[in-house]
Amino acid sequence: MKSHKKYLTFRTENKIEFINITAELKKILKESGIKEGLCLVSAMHITAAVFINDEERGLKEDFKEWLEWLAPRDLDRYRHNLTGEDNGHAHLKRTVMGREVVIGVSESKFDFGPWEQVFYGEFDGNRPKRVLVKIIGD
Amino acid sequence: MKSHKKYLTFRTENKIEFINITAELKKILKESGIKEGLCLVSAMHITAAVFINDEERGLKEDFKEWLEWLAPRDLDRYRHNLTGEDNGHAHLKRTVMGREVVIGVSESKFDFGPWEQVFYGEFDGNRPKRVLVKIIGD
Amino acid sequence: MKSHKKYLTFRTENKIEFINITAELKKILKESGIKEGLCLVSAMHITAAVFINDEERGLKEDFKEWLEWLAPRDLDRYRHNLTGEDNGHAHLKRTVMGREVVIGVSESKFDFGPWEQVFYGEFDGNRPKRVLVKIIGD
Repeated sequence: MKSHKKYLTFRTENKIEFINITAELKKILKESGIKEGLCLVSAMHITAAVFINDEERGLKEDFKEWLEWLAPRDLDRYRHNLTGEDNGHAHLKRTVMGREVVIGVSESKFDFGPWEQVFYGEFDGNRPKRVLVKIIGD
Repeated sequence: MKSHKKYLTFRTENKIEFINITAELKKILKESGIKEGLCLVSAMHITAAVFINDEERGLKEDFKEWLEWLAPRDLDRYRHNLTGEDNGHAHLKRTVMGREVVIGVSESKFDFGPWEQVFYGEFDGNRPKRVLVKIIGD
Repeated sequence: MKSHKKYLTFRTENKIEFINITAELKKILKESGIKEGLCLVSAMHITAAVFINDEERGLKEDFKEWLEWLAPRDLDRYRHNLTGEDNGHAHLKRTVMGREVVIGVSESKFDFGPWEQVFYGEFDGNRPKRVLVKIIGD
């Protein structure tokens, strides 16, 4: 069994931002030389997400609006913010979007459907944060 | 390390439908000959989900009603629909239910609890869509 | 390829409770002797969750309050409860929090970010329930 690991680091300009990381992941898979296996992509910070959806500008805005309804960025709403933090909402938003994805690797490629794109979802940005890419297989 | 892959194709009658795929997955695991490992089951389309819950008719209706509250099937609500699509709601619903599950394989069987059943969740049906089943192990 | 499996059993005092299982998982990883691989931690019951977030008391209360808004513990609200159950809400809450996590294993350690802690999330407690820990790798 082979394994390959890489960390990606993001420092977004905005507090909330979605970054398409699909091309970067494909490079890492190529480097790994793994033909058949599984690839884990996980946010290493608990106010960030990794998720798969469509590369479409309007949809990304829909997600942001929806998440703002589900978990408003409101300082007084969250007990977590009594610790001096202001990111209570971000912990909840990341939970909806998901911490990680697992992608199948078949014949040296990600076994994606036609529109699957992988995104890093940031909900409390402006500081460096990491994503783990871990591929195992043969 | 062994690996085994299969695609399942679904074309639901209804726009929103949940299909129990547990029996089909068990057949694929048997075919694979894998005794110890992990099995990824992932929706290859971004308006569909794969999730684990209970095979109970009422609960499935509860899920549908709840998802309709969380992300209503409303044409004008989503910027995504300005592209000519009408499935903005389906991208959000699938996000709540999840793109994928990873199942443990132990002694040639899925290492399930007593009521775990795997479902394909369709939120924008009436057209053929695929699910990836990828098992790795020994 | 090596594999290692362990079941954890929980019987919470409260119906809804979050238990930090990170230390227990680290012991299991050490036992396994696996240096590079993936670790699946999955709730084997469909009214329980496994998720990764922050060990902070206020945040845990925020999660509970938020889940109560998303899926209220209301007997008459859910068709599932017509079967004699009273845990319809718990199936929905667990869906938001997630059934499973997959953790990277690198150099014999979980490849965690600085604040990642793994929690068992119980939404219908007072009875014994299990979590599967399955590690594969080399």
